[in-house]
Amino acid sequence: MLTLISYDVVIDKRRTQVMKYLLGYGSRVQYSVFECDLTAEQFATVQRDIARLIDAQTDSVRCYRLDTGAIKQIRILGRGQVTTLPPYYLVG
Amino acid sequence: MLTLISYDVVIDKRRTQVMKYLLGYGSRVQYSVFECDLTAEQFATVQRDIARLIDAQTDSVRCYRLDTGAIKQIRILGRGQVTTLPPYYLVG
Repeated sequence: MLTLISYDVVIDKRRTQVMKYLLGYGSRVQYSVFECDLTAEQFATVQRDIARLIDAQTDSVRCYRLDTGAIKQIRILGRGQVTTLPPYYLVG
Repeated sequence: MLTLISYDVVIDKRRTQVMKYLLGYGSRVQYSVFECDLTAEQFATVQRDIARLIDAQTDSVRCYRLDTGAIKQIRILGRGQVTTLPPYYLVG
């Protein structure tokens, strides 16, 4: 499922770590916003790993799961486009 | 419907204008992220007004409509909480 992850991370080094980590899971659609196609298991892993990277007292990470209905309603003004999910093929 | 609006606006003055505009519609949950409860008409108005505030060549504004199912799946790490929508009362 497409998952939007936005973050406010105070310390530059930590913010870079979060950014680099998320590059492994999806596309950076804005400076501190990623869109990632995550299974439920991957989503749990990402939450666990990011929780270890940030300082829970000062930093904020927000994750939103977007179903196909929500994806159809994404509206973009200015630069950028919607992350297109790979078409899923039912095999066998 | 709860609507997430995130923005990357290059020029400080314009970014402040967008931020102040959105304060009139919802809560600032991260530095450049708002959660607003918008009717379809309000959503159209917000898109039209923000399109006039930004420079479409350099700036990016992303809008996501979140239904109750999506709201239930919001996950927050570190600081912050989910914007709670006012309970709707069916009258008469």
